[in-house]
Amino acid sequence: MSFYKRLDRATSQSRVCVGLDPVLEKLPHHLKNYETGTVEFLSAIVEATAPFTAAYKPNLAFFEALGTKGEYVLQATIDSVRKHAPNAIVIGDGKRNDIGSTAERYAIALFERFGFDAVTVNPYLGWDGIEPFTKYADRGVILLALTSNPSGGELQDHGGEDDPLYLKVAQLAEKRWNINNNIGLVVGATKGEKMARVREAAPSLPFLVPGIGAQGGDLQAVIQYSMGKGQPSGVVNSSRGIIYASSGEDFAQAAAREAEKLQTQINDLLES
Amino acid sequence: MSFYKRLDRATSQSRVCVGLDPVLEKLPHHLKNYETGTVEFLSAIVEATAPFTAAYKPNLAFFEALGTKGEYVLQATIDSVRKHAPNAIVIGDGKRNDIGSTAERYAIALFERFGFDAVTVNPYLGWDGIEPFTKYADRGVILLALTSNPSGGELQDHGGEDDPLYLKVAQLAEKRWNINNNIGLVVGATKGEKMARVREAAPSLPFLVPGIGAQGGDLQAVIQYSMGKGQPSGVVNSSRGIIYASSGEDFAQAAAREAEKLQTQINDLLES
Repeated sequence: MSFYKRLDRATSQSRVCVGLDPVLEKLPHHLKNYETGTVEFLSAIVEATAPFTAAYKPNLAFFEALGTKGEYVLQATIDSVRKHAPNAIVIGDGKRNDIGSTAERYAIALFERFGFDAVTVNPYLGWDGIEPFTKYADRGVILLALTSNPSGGELQDHGGEDDPLYLKVAQLAEKRWNINNNIGLVVGATKGEKMARVREAAPSLPFLVPGIGAQGGDLQAVIQYSMGKGQPSGVVNSSRGIIYASSGEDFAQAAAREAEKLQTQINDLLES
Repeated sequence: MSFYKRLDRATSQSRVCVGLDPVLEKLPHHLKNYETGTVEFLSAIVEATAPFTAAYKPNLAFFEALGTKGEYVLQATIDSVRKHAPNAIVIGDGKRNDIGSTAERYAIALFERFGFDAVTVNPYLGWDGIEPFTKYADRGVILLALTSNPSGGELQDHGGEDDPLYLKVAQLAEKRWNINNNIGLVVGATKGEKMARVREAAPSLPFLVPGIGAQGGDLQAVIQYSMGKGQPSGVVNSSRGIIYASSGEDFAQAAAREAEKLQTQINDLLES
Protein backbone atom coordinates (compact mmCIF):
# COMPACT_ATOMS: atom_id res chain seq x y z
CA MET A 1 0.00 0.00 0.00
CA SER A 2 1.37 3.46 -0.87
CA PHE A 3 2.38 5.75 1.96
CA TYR A 4 -0.37 8.25 1.18
CA LYS A 5 -2.98 5.47 1.24
CA ARG A 6 -1.66 4.24 4.54
CA LEU A 7 -1.76 7.77 5.89
CA ASP A 8 -5.37 8.16 4.72
CA ARG A 9 -6.30 4.95 6.47
CA ALA A 10 -4.42 5.87 9.66
CA THR A 11 -6.06 9.31 9.83
CA SER A 12 -9.63 8.26 9.07
CA GLN A 13 -10.69 8.67 12.72
CA SER A 14 -7.96 10.80 14.27
CA ARG A 15 -5.25 13.25 13.24
CA VAL A 16 -3.33 12.85 16.48
CA CYS A 17 0.36 11.95 16.37
CA VAL A 18 1.78 11.03 19.76
CA GLY A 19 5.40 12.06 20.09
CA LEU A 20 7.39 9.55 22.10
CA ASP A 21 10.21 11.45 23.81
CA PRO A 22 11.27 9.37 26.82
CA VAL A 23 13.29 11.16 29.49
CA LEU A 24 14.27 9.11 32.54
CA GLU A 25 13.77 11.97 35.00
CA LYS A 26 10.24 12.57 33.78
CA LEU A 27 9.01 9.00 34.11
CA PRO A 28 6.31 8.32 36.68
CA HIS A 29 7.93 7.78 40.06
CA HIS A 30 7.05 4.10 40.32
CA LEU A 31 8.81 3.34 37.01
CA LYS A 32 12.00 5.30 37.49
CA ASN A 33 13.83 2.55 39.30
CA TYR A 34 12.95 -0.24 36.96
CA GLU A 35 15.60 -1.32 34.50
CA THR A 36 12.82 -1.70 31.98
CA GLY A 37 10.83 1.30 33.22
CA THR A 38 11.05 3.18 29.92
CA VAL A 39 9.74 0.25 27.91
CA GLU A 40 6.92 -0.28 30.38
CA PHE A 41 6.10 3.44 30.28
CA LEU A 42 6.02 3.74 26.49
CA SER A 43 4.16 0.48 25.94
CA ALA A 44 1.47 1.50 28.41
CA ILE A 45 1.18 4.91 26.70
CA VAL A 46 0.85 3.28 23.30
CA GLU A 47 -1.73 0.76 24.47
CA ALA A 48 -3.86 3.39 26.20
CA THR A 49 -3.70 6.01 23.42
CA ALA A 50 -4.09 3.61 20.48
CA PRO A 51 -7.86 4.18 19.99
CA PHE A 52 -7.32 7.94 19.61
CA THR A 53 -4.11 8.02 17.62
CA ALA A 54 -3.16 8.06 13.92
CA ALA A 55 0.61 8.03 14.28
CA TYR A 56 3.41 7.61 16.78
CA LYS A 57 6.59 9.59 16.46
CA PRO A 58 9.56 8.33 18.45
CA ASN A 59 12.21 11.05 18.43
CA LEU A 60 15.50 9.22 18.01
CA ALA A 61 17.47 11.71 20.12
CA PHE A 62 15.67 10.61 23.26
CA PHE A 63 16.42 6.94 22.63
CA GLU A 64 20.05 7.59 21.76
CA ALA A 65 20.47 9.53 25.02
CA LEU A 66 19.24 6.50 26.99
CA GLY A 67 22.52 4.72 26.42
CA THR A 68 23.11 1.24 25.15
CA LYS A 69 19.59 0.12 25.99
CA GLY A 70 18.06 2.90 23.89
CA GLU A 71 17.95 0.78 20.79
CA TYR A 72 16.18 -2.04 22.58
CA VAL A 73 13.67 0.43 24.04
CA LEU A 74 13.00 1.86 20.59
CA GLN A 75 12.47 -1.56 19.02
CA ALA A 76 10.19 -2.65 21.86
CA THR A 77 8.19 0.57 21.44
CA ILE A 78 7.74 0.02 17.71
CA ASP A 79 6.67 -3.58 18.43
CA SER A 80 4.14 -2.26 20.89
CA VAL A 81 2.62 0.05 18.25
CA ARG A 82 2.40 -2.84 15.77
CA LYS A 83 0.56 -4.87 18.38
CA HIS A 84 -1.86 -2.28 19.78
CA ALA A 85 -2.32 0.06 16.82
CA PRO A 86 -1.64 -1.97 13.66
CA ASN A 87 -2.89 0.78 11.32
CA ALA A 88 -0.92 3.60 12.93
CA ILE A 89 1.99 5.16 11.09
CA VAL A 90 5.31 5.01 12.95
CA ILE A 91 7.48 8.00 12.15
CA GLY A 92 11.19 7.79 12.96
CA ASP A 93 11.92 11.39 13.86
CA GLY A 94 15.67 11.66 13.35
CA LYS A 95 15.95 14.61 10.96
CA ARG A 96 18.79 12.71 9.28
CA ASN A 97 20.68 14.18 6.35
CA ASP A 98 23.90 13.50 4.47
CA ILE A 99 25.33 13.17 0.96
CA GLY A 100 23.69 10.51 -1.20
CA SER A 101 25.87 7.47 -0.53
CA THR A 102 25.64 8.15 3.20
CA ALA A 103 21.94 8.98 3.22
CA GLU A 104 21.50 5.45 1.81
CA ARG A 105 22.98 4.11 5.02
CA TYR A 106 20.52 6.08 7.12
CA ALA A 107 17.70 4.78 4.96
CA ILE A 108 18.88 1.21 5.57
CA ALA A 109 19.09 1.81 9.30
CA LEU A 110 15.69 3.45 9.60
CA PHE A 111 13.57 1.62 7.04
CA GLU A 112 15.16 -1.84 7.00
CA ARG A 113 16.45 -2.22 10.53
CA PHE A 114 13.77 -0.45 12.51
CA GLY A 115 11.02 -0.73 9.93
CA PHE A 116 9.72 2.82 10.28
CA ASP A 117 6.78 3.73 8.04
CA ALA A 118 8.13 7.23 7.62
CA VAL A 119 11.12 9.33 8.62
CA THR A 120 11.85 13.01 9.01
CA VAL A 121 14.70 14.36 6.87
CA ASN A 122 16.52 17.69 6.96
CA PRO A 123 16.66 19.03 3.37
CA TYR A 124 19.76 21.25 3.72
CA LEU A 125 21.79 19.04 1.34
CA GLY A 126 19.21 19.06 -1.45
CA TRP A 127 17.88 16.27 -3.61
CA ASP A 128 20.75 13.84 -3.60
CA GLY A 129 20.54 13.63 0.19
CA ILE A 130 16.77 13.09 0.00
CA GLU A 131 16.45 10.66 -2.90
CA PRO A 132 17.87 7.60 -1.09
CA PHE A 133 14.97 7.84 1.38
CA THR A 134 12.30 8.43 -1.27
CA LYS A 135 13.43 5.32 -3.14
CA TYR A 136 11.59 3.32 -0.50
CA ALA A 137 8.39 4.08 -2.35
CA ASP A 138 6.02 2.65 0.25
CA ARG A 139 7.52 4.72 3.06
CA GLY A 140 7.06 8.38 3.86
CA VAL A 141 9.78 11.03 3.76
CA ILE A 142 8.81 14.09 5.76
CA LEU A 143 11.07 17.04 5.05
CA LEU A 144 11.69 19.87 7.49
CA ALA A 145 10.26 22.99 5.91
CA LEU A 146 9.13 25.37 8.67
CA THR A 147 10.12 24.34 12.17
CA SER A 148 8.29 25.38 15.32
CA ASN A 149 11.24 26.51 17.46
CA PRO A 150 11.90 30.20 18.25
CA SER A 151 15.05 30.51 16.11
CA GLY A 152 13.62 28.52 13.19
CA GLY A 153 13.40 31.67 11.09
CA GLU A 154 17.09 32.54 11.30
CA LEU A 155 17.83 30.45 8.23
CA GLN A 156 14.35 29.38 7.14
CA ASP A 157 13.31 32.99 6.43
CA HIS A 158 16.46 33.63 4.42
CA GLY A 159 15.72 35.04 0.98
CA GLY A 160 13.33 37.68 2.26
CA GLU A 161 9.57 37.97 2.65
CA ASP A 162 8.93 37.22 -1.04
CA ASP A 163 11.15 34.20 -1.37
CA PRO A 164 11.94 32.63 2.00
CA LEU A 165 13.88 29.37 2.24
CA TYR A 166 11.02 27.45 3.86
CA LEU A 167 8.87 28.16 0.78
CA LYS A 168 11.70 27.07 -1.50
CA VAL A 169 11.73 23.72 0.29
CA ALA A 170 7.95 23.45 -0.13
CA GLN A 171 8.17 24.34 -3.84
CA LEU A 172 10.97 21.89 -4.58
CA ALA A 173 9.18 19.15 -2.66
CA GLU A 174 5.91 19.78 -4.49
CA LYS A 175 7.26 20.29 -8.00
CA ARG A 176 10.52 18.40 -8.30
CA TRP A 177 11.22 15.94 -5.52
CA ASN A 178 7.95 14.05 -5.08
CA ILE A 179 8.49 11.59 -7.92
CA ASN A 180 7.56 8.58 -5.79
CA ASN A 181 4.53 10.23 -4.21
CA ASN A 182 5.77 9.74 -0.69
CA ILE A 183 6.96 13.15 0.50
CA GLY A 184 5.44 15.16 3.33
CA LEU A 185 6.48 18.34 5.12
CA VAL A 186 7.14 19.29 8.72
CA VAL A 187 5.33 22.58 9.20
CA GLY A 188 5.35 24.04 12.70
CA ALA A 189 2.13 25.05 14.42
CA THR A 190 3.58 28.23 15.83
CA LYS A 191 3.50 30.28 12.66
CA GLY A 192 -0.01 30.47 11.20
CA GLU A 193 0.41 32.83 8.28
CA LYS A 194 3.61 31.12 7.17
CA MET A 195 1.88 27.76 7.32
CA ALA A 196 -0.75 29.12 4.94
CA ARG A 197 1.98 30.05 2.47
CA VAL A 198 3.50 26.56 2.68
CA ARG A 199 0.10 25.04 1.97
CA GLU A 200 -0.29 27.29 -1.06
CA ALA A 201 3.15 26.28 -2.36
CA ALA A 202 2.60 22.58 -1.70
CA PRO A 203 -1.09 21.83 -2.12
CA SER A 204 -0.61 18.08 -2.54
CA LEU A 205 1.70 17.27 0.37
CA PRO A 206 0.61 16.00 3.79
CA PHE A 207 1.86 17.98 6.78
CA LEU A 208 3.27 16.75 10.05
CA VAL A 209 2.56 19.61 12.43
CA PRO A 210 4.60 19.88 15.63
CA GLY A 211 4.45 22.72 18.12
CA ILE A 212 0.99 22.26 19.58
CA GLY A 213 0.76 22.32 23.38
CA ALA A 214 4.11 22.85 25.11
CA GLN A 215 5.31 24.99 22.21
CA GLY A 216 2.09 27.00 22.08
CA GLY A 217 0.69 26.73 18.55
CA ASP A 218 -2.88 27.76 17.74
CA LEU A 219 -4.93 24.68 16.86
CA GLN A 220 -7.68 26.39 14.89
CA ALA A 221 -5.26 28.07 12.49
CA VAL A 222 -3.27 24.85 12.23
CA ILE A 223 -6.24 22.80 11.11
CA GLN A 224 -7.44 25.47 8.70
CA TYR A 225 -4.11 25.81 6.92
CA SER A 226 -2.71 22.30 7.15
CA MET A 227 -5.48 19.72 6.83
CA GLY A 228 -8.77 21.51 6.36
CA LYS A 229 -11.25 20.82 3.56
CA GLY A 230 -9.75 19.77 0.25
CA GLN A 231 -6.29 19.30 1.71
CA PRO A 232 -4.34 16.05 2.02
CA SER A 233 -4.34 14.00 5.22
CA GLY A 234 -1.91 15.09 7.88
CA VAL A 235 -1.19 14.72 11.56
CA VAL A 236 -0.80 17.07 14.50
CA ASN A 237 1.92 16.03 16.92
CA SER A 238 1.80 16.39 20.67
CA SER A 239 4.60 14.92 22.76
CA ARG A 240 4.96 16.24 26.32
CA GLY A 241 1.31 17.30 26.56
CA ILE A 242 0.23 13.70 26.17
CA ILE A 243 2.94 11.41 27.49
CA TYR A 244 3.69 13.47 30.60
CA ALA A 245 0.08 14.44 31.34
CA SER A 246 0.40 12.76 34.73
CA SER A 247 3.45 11.63 36.66
CA GLY A 248 1.39 9.32 38.84
CA GLU A 249 0.33 5.73 38.40
CA ASP A 250 -2.50 6.95 36.16
CA PHE A 251 -0.03 8.24 33.53
CA ALA A 252 -1.39 6.02 30.76
CA GLN A 253 -5.03 6.90 31.38
CA ALA A 254 -4.07 10.58 31.59
CA ALA A 255 -2.24 10.25 28.27
CA ALA A 256 -5.28 8.58 26.71
CA ARG A 257 -7.52 11.41 28.01
CA GLU A 258 -5.24 14.04 26.45
CA ALA A 259 -5.01 12.15 23.16
CA GLU A 260 -8.77 11.77 23.03
CA LYS A 261 -9.24 15.45 23.87
CA LEU A 262 -6.93 16.50 21.05
CA GLN A 263 -8.62 14.05 18.67
CA THR A 264 -12.01 15.57 19.50
CA GLN A 265 -10.77 19.17 19.22
CA ILE A 266 -9.29 18.49 15.81
CA ASN A 267 -12.28 16.53 14.54
CA ASP A 268 -14.61 19.32 15.69
CA LEU A 269 -12.51 21.87 13.82
CA LEU A 270 -12.43 19.65 10.72
CA GLU A 271 -16.22 19.42 10.72
CA SER A 272 -16.87 23.08 11.44
CA MET B 1 41.97 22.33 27.10
CA SER B 2 39.75 24.34 24.72
CA PHE B 3 38.64 22.74 21.49
CA TYR B 4 40.65 25.15 19.37
CA LYS B 5 43.80 24.41 21.40
CA ARG B 6 43.22 20.68 21.01
CA LEU B 7 42.71 21.17 17.28
CA ASP B 8 45.97 23.14 17.05
CA ARG B 9 47.79 20.36 18.85
CA ALA B 10 46.20 17.63 16.74
CA THR B 11 47.05 19.43 13.48
CA SER B 12 50.64 20.36 14.29
CA GLN B 13 52.05 17.65 12.00
CA SER B 14 49.12 16.69 9.77
CA ARG B 15 45.83 18.10 8.51
CA VAL B 16 44.48 14.72 7.52
CA CYS B 17 41.10 13.60 8.83
CA VAL B 18 40.36 9.95 8.13
CA GLY B 19 36.66 9.34 7.56
CA LEU B 20 35.56 6.02 8.99
CA ASP B 21 32.64 4.79 6.88
CA PRO B 22 32.45 1.02 7.32
CA VAL B 23 30.46 -0.91 4.73
CA LEU B 24 30.36 -4.69 5.13
CA GLU B 25 30.53 -5.39 1.39
CA LYS B 26 33.66 -3.28 1.04
CA LEU B 27 35.67 -4.95 3.78
CA PRO B 28 38.77 -6.89 2.74
CA HIS B 29 37.77 -10.39 1.78
CA HIS B 30 39.47 -12.12 4.70
CA LEU B 31 37.50 -10.00 7.21
CA LYS B 32 34.05 -10.23 5.70
CA ASN B 33 33.13 -13.45 7.40
CA TYR B 34 34.28 -12.50 10.84
CA GLU B 35 31.63 -11.45 13.33
CA THR B 36 34.08 -8.85 14.54
CA GLY B 37 35.49 -8.08 11.08
CA THR B 38 34.45 -4.44 11.11
CA VAL B 39 36.08 -3.76 14.45
CA GLU B 40 39.24 -5.50 13.34
CA PHE B 41 39.21 -3.55 10.06
CA LEU B 42 38.73 -0.12 11.65
CA SER B 43 41.18 -0.74 14.49
CA ALA B 44 43.88 -1.81 12.05
CA ILE B 45 43.19 1.28 9.92
CA VAL B 46 43.43 3.55 12.96
CA GLU B 47 46.63 1.96 14.23
CA ALA B 48 48.32 2.13 10.82
CA THR B 49 47.24 5.68 9.96
CA ALA B 50 47.77 7.21 13.41
CA PRO B 51 51.23 8.70 12.67
CA PHE B 52 49.82 10.64 9.70
CA THR B 53 46.45 11.69 11.02
CA ALA B 54 45.04 14.69 12.92
CA ALA B 55 41.44 13.55 13.27
CA TYR B 56 39.16 10.58 12.76
CA LYS B 57 35.60 11.08 11.63
CA PRO B 58 33.26 8.13 12.11
CA ASN B 59 30.10 8.82 10.12
CA LEU B 60 27.27 7.63 12.32
CA ALA B 61 25.08 6.51 9.41
CA PHE B 62 27.47 3.69 8.58
CA PHE B 63 27.47 2.40 12.14
CA GLU B 64 23.70 2.65 12.47
CA ALA B 65 23.30 0.64 9.27
CA LEU B 66 25.41 -2.18 10.74
CA GLY B 67 22.55 -3.23 12.99
CA THR B 68 22.59 -3.85 16.69
CA LYS B 69 26.35 -4.34 16.76
CA GLY B 70 26.94 -0.90 15.22
CA GLU B 71 27.10 0.80 18.55
CA TYR B 72 29.68 -1.64 19.87
CA VAL B 73 31.75 -1.21 16.69
CA LEU B 74 31.64 2.58 17.08
CA GLN B 75 32.69 2.48 20.72
CA ALA B 76 35.49 0.03 19.96
CA THR B 77 36.67 2.30 17.14
CA ILE B 78 36.75 5.35 19.39
CA ASP B 79 38.66 3.33 22.01
CA SER B 80 41.13 2.37 19.32
CA VAL B 81 41.75 6.03 18.45
CA ARG B 82 42.29 6.90 22.12
CA LYS B 83 44.87 4.12 22.36
CA HIS B 84 46.80 4.62 19.12
CA ALA B 85 46.34 8.35 18.48
CA PRO B 86 45.74 9.98 21.88
CA ASN B 87 46.03 13.53 20.51
CA ALA B 88 43.73 13.02 17.54
CA ILE B 89 40.30 14.68 17.47
CA VAL B 90 37.39 12.27 17.13
CA ILE B 91 34.53 13.88 15.22
CA GLY B 92 31.10 12.27 15.48
CA ASP B 93 29.72 12.98 12.04
CA GLY B 94 25.97 12.71 12.53
CA LYS B 95 24.74 16.09 11.21
CA ARG B 96 22.19 16.04 14.03
CA ASN B 97 19.66 18.83 14.44
CA ASP B 98 16.46 19.44 16.37
CA ILE B 99 14.69 21.99 18.56
CA GLY B 100 16.57 23.00 21.72
CA SER B 101 15.22 20.53 24.27
CA THR B 102 15.77 17.68 21.83
CA ALA B 103 19.18 18.86 20.63
CA GLU B 104 20.18 18.56 24.31
CA ARG B 105 19.47 14.83 24.07
CA TYR B 106 21.68 14.46 21.03
CA ALA B 107 24.44 16.35 22.84
CA ILE B 108 24.14 13.95 25.78
CA ALA B 109 24.28 10.95 23.45
CA LEU B 110 27.26 12.20 21.45
CA PHE B 111 29.38 14.02 24.02
CA GLU B 112 28.60 12.13 27.22
CA ARG B 113 27.89 8.62 25.99
CA PHE B 114 30.36 8.30 23.13
CA GLY B 115 32.74 11.02 24.29
CA PHE B 116 33.25 12.62 20.89
CA ASP B 117 35.60 15.61 20.83
CA ALA B 118 33.48 17.29 18.19
CA VAL B 119 30.26 16.73 16.28
CA THR B 120 28.80 17.92 13.01
CA VAL B 121 25.47 19.76 13.27
CA ASN B 122 22.99 20.81 10.58
CA PRO B 123 22.10 24.48 11.21
CA TYR B 124 18.66 24.52 9.54
CA LEU B 125 16.87 25.12 12.87
CA GLY B 126 19.01 28.09 13.89
CA TRP B 127 20.63 28.97 17.18
CA ASP B 128 18.38 27.21 19.65
CA GLY B 129 19.12 23.90 17.94
CA ILE B 130 22.86 24.64 18.01
CA GLU B 131 23.32 26.10 21.48
CA PRO B 132 22.86 22.83 23.42
CA PHE B 133 25.92 21.44 21.63
CA THR B 134 28.05 24.57 22.07
CA LYS B 135 27.40 24.53 25.82
CA TYR B 136 29.94 21.72 26.00
CA ALA B 137 32.62 24.38 25.82
CA ASP B 138 35.59 21.99 25.48
CA ARG B 139 34.02 20.20 22.50
CA GLY B 140 33.79 21.29 18.91
CA VAL B 141 30.55 21.99 17.03
CA ILE B 142 31.10 21.87 13.29
CA LEU B 143 28.17 23.35 11.38
CA LEU B 144 27.27 22.40 7.83
CA ALA B 145 27.76 25.51 5.72
CA LEU B 146 28.68 24.48 2.19
CA THR B 147 28.41 20.77 1.48
CA SER B 148 30.36 18.93 -1.21
CA ASN B 149 27.52 16.96 -2.84
CA PRO B 150 26.18 17.82 -6.33
CA SER B 151 22.79 19.12 -5.13
CA GLY B 152 24.25 21.04 -2.18
CA GLY B 153 23.49 24.34 -3.88
CA GLU B 154 19.74 23.75 -4.27
CA LEU B 155 19.10 25.28 -0.85
CA GLN B 156 22.56 26.48 0.15
CA ASP B 157 22.70 28.96 -2.74
CA HIS B 158 19.24 30.31 -1.91
CA GLY B 159 19.20 34.08 -1.54
CA GLY B 160 21.10 34.71 -4.74
CA GLU B 161 24.71 35.32 -5.67
CA ASP B 162 25.04 38.30 -3.29
CA ASP B 163 23.51 36.71 -0.25
CA PRO B 164 23.51 32.91 -0.45
CA LEU B 165 22.38 30.81 2.50
CA TYR B 166 25.78 29.16 3.00
CA LEU B 167 27.31 32.60 3.61
CA LYS B 168 24.51 33.45 6.03
CA VAL B 169 25.45 30.35 8.06
CA ALA B 170 29.10 31.42 8.00
CA GLN B 171 28.22 34.97 9.08
CA LEU B 172 25.95 33.89 11.92
CA ALA B 173 28.53 31.36 13.11
CA GLU B 174 31.32 33.94 13.05
CA LYS B 175 29.47 36.90 14.49
CA ARG B 176 26.69 35.60 16.71
CA TRP B 177 26.88 31.92 17.54
CA ASN B 178 30.51 31.38 18.53
CA ILE B 179 30.18 32.60 22.13
CA ASN B 180 32.00 29.58 23.54
CA ASN B 181 34.77 29.63 20.95
CA ASN B 182 34.14 26.11 19.80
CA ILE B 183 32.40 26.38 16.44
CA GLY B 184 33.81 25.21 13.12
CA LEU B 185 32.32 24.88 9.64
CA VAL B 186 31.94 22.08 7.14
CA VAL B 187 33.04 23.57 3.83
CA GLY B 188 33.16 21.23 0.86
CA ALA B 189 36.28 20.90 -1.27
CA THR B 190 34.35 20.83 -4.52
CA LYS B 191 33.58 24.54 -4.76
CA GLY B 192 36.77 26.62 -4.66
CA GLU B 193 35.44 30.13 -5.19
CA LYS B 194 32.58 29.61 -2.76
CA MET B 195 35.00 28.31 -0.16
CA ALA B 196 36.94 31.57 -0.51
CA ARG B 197 33.77 33.53 0.26
CA VAL B 198 33.10 31.41 3.36
CA ARG B 199 36.63 32.07 4.58
CA GLU B 200 36.12 35.79 4.08
CA ALA B 201 32.84 35.69 6.04
CA ALA B 202 34.25 33.55 8.81
CA PRO B 203 37.94 34.37 9.20
CA SER B 204 38.25 32.92 12.70
CA LEU B 205 36.57 29.53 12.27
CA PRO B 206 38.33 26.24 11.55
CA PHE B 207 37.09 24.31 8.53
CA LEU B 208 36.41 20.62 8.16
CA VAL B 209 36.80 20.03 4.43
CA PRO B 210 35.16 16.95 2.91
CA GLY B 211 35.02 16.14 -0.79
CA ILE B 212 38.67 15.43 -1.55
CA GLY B 213 39.38 12.25 -3.51
CA ALA B 214 36.26 10.26 -4.37
CA GLN B 215 34.26 13.47 -4.65
CA GLY B 216 36.93 15.18 -6.72
CA GLY B 217 37.86 18.44 -4.98
CA ASP B 218 40.98 20.40 -5.92
CA LEU B 219 43.51 20.18 -3.08
CA GLN B 220 45.53 23.26 -3.93
CA ALA B 221 42.52 25.57 -3.89
CA VAL B 222 41.26 23.88 -0.74
CA ILE B 223 44.42 24.54 1.20
CA GLN B 224 44.70 28.10 -0.07
CA TYR B 225 41.19 29.07 0.93
CA SER B 226 40.62 26.97 4.03
CA MET B 227 43.81 26.67 6.06
CA GLY B 228 46.56 28.60 4.32
CA LYS B 229 48.74 31.24 5.96
CA GLY B 230 47.09 33.28 8.70
CA GLN B 231 44.04 31.06 8.82
CA PRO B 232 42.89 28.86 11.72
CA SER B 233 43.74 25.17 11.90
CA GLY B 234 41.50 22.85 9.99
CA VAL B 235 41.37 19.37 8.59
CA VAL B 236 40.85 17.80 5.18
CA ASN B 237 38.77 14.66 5.24
CA SER B 238 39.29 11.60 3.08
CA SER B 239 37.19 8.51 3.66
CA ARG B 240 37.00 5.98 0.82
CA GLY B 241 40.34 7.07 -0.68
CA ILE B 242 42.11 5.98 2.49
CA ILE B 243 40.17 3.20 4.15
CA TYR B 244 39.38 1.31 0.96
CA ALA B 245 42.76 1.91 -0.71
CA SER B 246 43.25 -1.85 -0.88
CA SER B 247 40.81 -4.70 -0.47
CA GLY B 248 43.59 -7.19 0.19
CA GLU B 249 45.34 -8.22 3.36
CA ASP B 250 47.54 -5.13 3.03
CA PHE B 251 44.52 -2.80 3.53
CA ALA B 252 45.97 -1.14 6.65
CA GLN B 253 49.37 -0.49 5.11
CA ALA B 254 47.66 0.82 1.96
CA ALA B 255 45.53 3.14 4.10
CA ALA B 256 48.64 4.36 5.90
CA ARG B 257 50.34 5.03 2.56
CA GLU B 258 47.37 7.09 1.34
CA ALA B 259 47.12 9.00 4.61
CA GLU B 260 50.84 9.77 4.52
CA LYS B 261 50.60 10.83 0.88
CA LEU B 262 47.76 13.24 1.65
CA GLN B 263 49.63 14.54 4.71
CA THR B 264 52.68 15.26 2.56
CA GLN B 265 50.67 16.88 -0.25
CA ILE B 266 48.93 19.19 2.21
CA ASN B 267 52.08 20.03 4.12
CA ASP B 268 53.89 20.84 0.88
CA LEU B 269 51.05 23.15 -0.14
CA LEU B 270 51.06 24.79 3.30
CA GLU B 271 54.79 25.51 3.00
CA SER B 272 54.72 26.71 -0.58
